[in-house]
Parts: sequence; C-alpha cells; structure tokens
Amino acid sequence: MHFKFDKSRIHSFESVSSTMDIARQMAEENCPDRTVIVAKHQTCGRGRMKRNWQSDQGGLYMTWVLRPKINISLCFAFTFSSALSIVEALEKIFKIKAEVKWPNDVLVNGHKIAGILTETKIDNNELNYLNIGMGININNIPNSNTFQATSIKDLIQKKVNTSTFIDFLFDKLDYNFQHMNPKKVIQEWKARNCTLGKFVRVKTFASFSEGYAIDIDNSGALLLEKENGEIETVIYGDCFEVSGIKFT
Amino acid sequence: MHFKFDKSRIHSFESVSSTMDIARQMAEENCPDRTVIVAKHQTCGRGRMKRNWQSDQGGLYMTWVLRPKINISLCFAFTFSSALSIVEALEKIFKIKAEVKWPNDVLVNGHKIAGILTETKIDNNELNYLNIGMGININNIPNSNTFQATSIKDLIQKKVNTSTFIDFLFDKLDYNFQHMNPKKVIQEWKARNCTLGKFVRVKTFASFSEGYAIDIDNSGALLLEKENGEIETVIYGDCFEVSGIKFT
Repeated sequence: MHFKFDKSRIHSFESVSSTMDIARQMAEENCPDRTVIVAKHQTCGRGRMKRNWQSDQGGLYMTWVLRPKINISLCFAFTFSSALSIVEALEKIFKIKAEVKWPNDVLVNGHKIAGILTETKIDNNELNYLNIGMGININNIPNSNTFQATSIKDLIQKKVNTSTFIDFLFDKLDYNFQHMNPKKVIQEWKARNCTLGKFVRVKTFASFSEGYAIDIDNSGALLLEKENGEIETVIYGDCFEVSGIKFT
Repeated sequence: MHFKFDKSRIHSFESVSSTMDIARQMAEENCPDRTVIVAKHQTCGRGRMKRNWQSDQGGLYMTWVLRPKINISLCFAFTFSSALSIVEALEKIFKIKAEVKWPNDVLVNGHKIAGILTETKIDNNELNYLNIGMGININNIPNSNTFQATSIKDLIQKKVNTSTFIDFLFDKLDYNFQHMNPKKVIQEWKARNCTLGKFVRVKTFASFSEGYAIDIDNSGALLLEKENGEIETVIYGDCFEVSGIKFT
C-alpha cells in the first residue's frame, strides 16, 4: 500500500471478528481521527439489520474511525461520501460503472458489490466518533441468498491486483473525509443513485413504508410520495425496489 | 429501596469509576431496556464538557440504560424528562422548589443540585442505546469552583433519609421512560425552566453564541435571538446567563 497519508493510522489484520468491533475498541481508547482498521478476513462480519456480512478471503473489509467536528445531523454525508468514493475507485481503476443505492450500498447492474455500516457514538449531543465500515467484494465470489451480489473478479472474469485500487480508494476517502461538503455530497449522490424515481418499499423498525422515492432531504433521509399524495420522510431502513407496482 | 418495578434491573455498587462506564459496558453486552446502575461513590465521576463530577459519599449517582424504539431526534425528550422527574421528586418529598436549566441541569435558587449526562449509540441511524447519567446532591456538601452548587442537606440544614426520595424518583423515571410523550415533555420543561427569557451565552464546539433565549424547538434545541435579529438554533453547549447585558 502506497498512500499519501500517514501509514501509522492504518492497522492491518489477517483475521478479526469484525473490523467494526476493533474500531469501536480503538475509538473508545481515543484513537485519532481517520484511524483505519483493515482485515483480509472476518469471522463475524456484520451487515445491516443484524445480518451477517460474508467475509471470504479476497474481499476488502475495513472500518474508518472518524471524529469530525460537525453537527450530528450531518453524519449521513460521511456515509454517502464513502459510497461515492467506492463508486469512483471502481470506475477509475477497473472501468466498472457502479451506482449508489439508498441508504448505503454500492451496486453494479443491480448486484451488490459493496456495503457500508455505520456506528455513531454521541455524548451529550456532540459526536464522539463515527465509525464507517465498508465491505467490498474484490477477488471473492459472494454467494448470498438474500441479495444478488457480485465482485470485481465476477465482473472482470479474472483475479485482479488490489493495490492500485486500495491506494486510490484510501487517498480518496481520506481526502473526502477531511474536506466534507454535505451539499456537494448530496448533489453527487443524486447524480449516481439508482433509488430515486422508483417505487420502493422500505423496511423500518417494525413496519414497511411504500411509495415513490422522489428525493433526499438535507439530512440524507428518503422522501417517499405515498399513494394518497402524502410525503413520508424515511430516516433509515432496508430499501427494496418493488417491480410491477406503479401509481396509476 | 421499594420500587414498583422489577428490582433485578437495578445494579448497585459501593464505588465505581463512573456509573456511565459500567452502563456502557452493560449496554454493549445487550442488557435490557431500563437497566439501572447505582453507586454510592464514584472515583472518576464525569461531568459535561469533559469536566469531573464531584462524587462524594451521600450523593446519588446513577445511569439508566434505555433502548426506546424512537427516532433518534427524540432522544432529547428522555434527558428533559429525567430533569423534570428530579424536579418533581424534590418538590414532592422535600418541598424543595427546583427549576430546569437548558440543556440538562436542575437548579435550586440558581444553584446546581443535579446534573445529567447522556451517551447515545447509534447503529446505521437507529438508536442502539441511550444512557442517561444523573448526579444528585443529597447528603453531600458539594464544593465546586466552576459552578455554585447545593444539596438537599444544604437546603434543609440536616441530613435526610434518602429512601422515600429514591423510591419516588425511580418509579417516576421508570414510568416516564415507558410513556414518553415528547410534546408534553417540552410543554412541562418550558413551564419549569429558568433559561427562556434570559440573555445567555452558550459555549459550543469552539466558539460562543450569545443571544436572548426565546424558545426550544421540537428537538429540544435552544433558539437564540441575536442582536441583529437573526435566530440561531443551538443544539448543545454550556449555557450561562449573562448578567447586566440586555437588548436595548
């Protein structure tokens, strides 16, 4: 790895339970902003909604510990920015055209190539740390029952050299996290997304919300136009496109 | 202690580093909603803005681990409700008239009798736990250089029996946390506060905000009317009344 930034901030492991767990521990022990935990393999990789994240050898599994001095309502921008950085790295290094899916996935032709997890600790309404975990399918062959997934190896039909990709991605993330502009991030996210304009179903706490995904607000929440014309703001949830259902 | 609710949820200690630390550990280990950590003494009691909280014998130091299924923007209501519960218990058991001060203190005649700390953990925009720590000066004699403080013993001029107070307060908190109504909490907070209507200075991240405290919004943030007529929304900070400064 040949990064522009201080390598001492990168902590690499062969195998960990989950980079999120190590990151939390290091964050609680006051590690500096933009500390990175990287692992080649995870024994208990975490996905969203308490699902597992398949973490075979060949994938890239990492968590960034961030401590930006921002209003907590702007944390979403760091998640969106991570997804956009992955999209850009895929395009730049492998000429793979990817899209972002609300709230925080990266897809290629509708198949998931990367997923993002966040863990936020807030003390008295001030952000203590924001940990962003990313799982990227590179040289592994993902096999998921729940989602259709893909990897760079799947797409290019051969094992790829990861070092240029990782160098580019890490520098990109590091730069973007340091020069965060939430408005610009939303603009860029909108230009690259595959969620808006579709009729979607979002699984929230205990129920579902369904509607036409019309926009993202300033806090990254999804605006759904329901069948009765009401606009619902959905802060987070699992988002599925509903085929064949359209407003009449 | 004779509470209405399940005592197995209360974990009492003679002395701990800080009830916040124990609570975090238990929360990370998935303890249930409304688990309570109580200590008679803290060796490293925490205050806001990384200050210490003096934790002499005779005070009540505790942290409640909450896991409400709410939108994270409503967490403030649990903090406000804690302060209001303390105010009510002081009035009911000791006939002491107390007030709430934004963001989360309890004062008697301008002297601090209780302080509240919160620690919030959010996973993918969903609340994992909200820990609310309370330090209440009961039979201790607080001695602070930074703030004028008082205790029940100070006010009543004798050592008091804590058990009725604790029973009442715990039942109150337990009930309020289970039946949370943010709108009602804001109403009650406004009726009991000593912040609104004053010219205040609020210390935020790296700067100060000054203005006339005109209202609290739906998220518990303080609305300051600045001298130039602008309204500033202050999410959190240390709030001081500025004596002798008034709009002309």
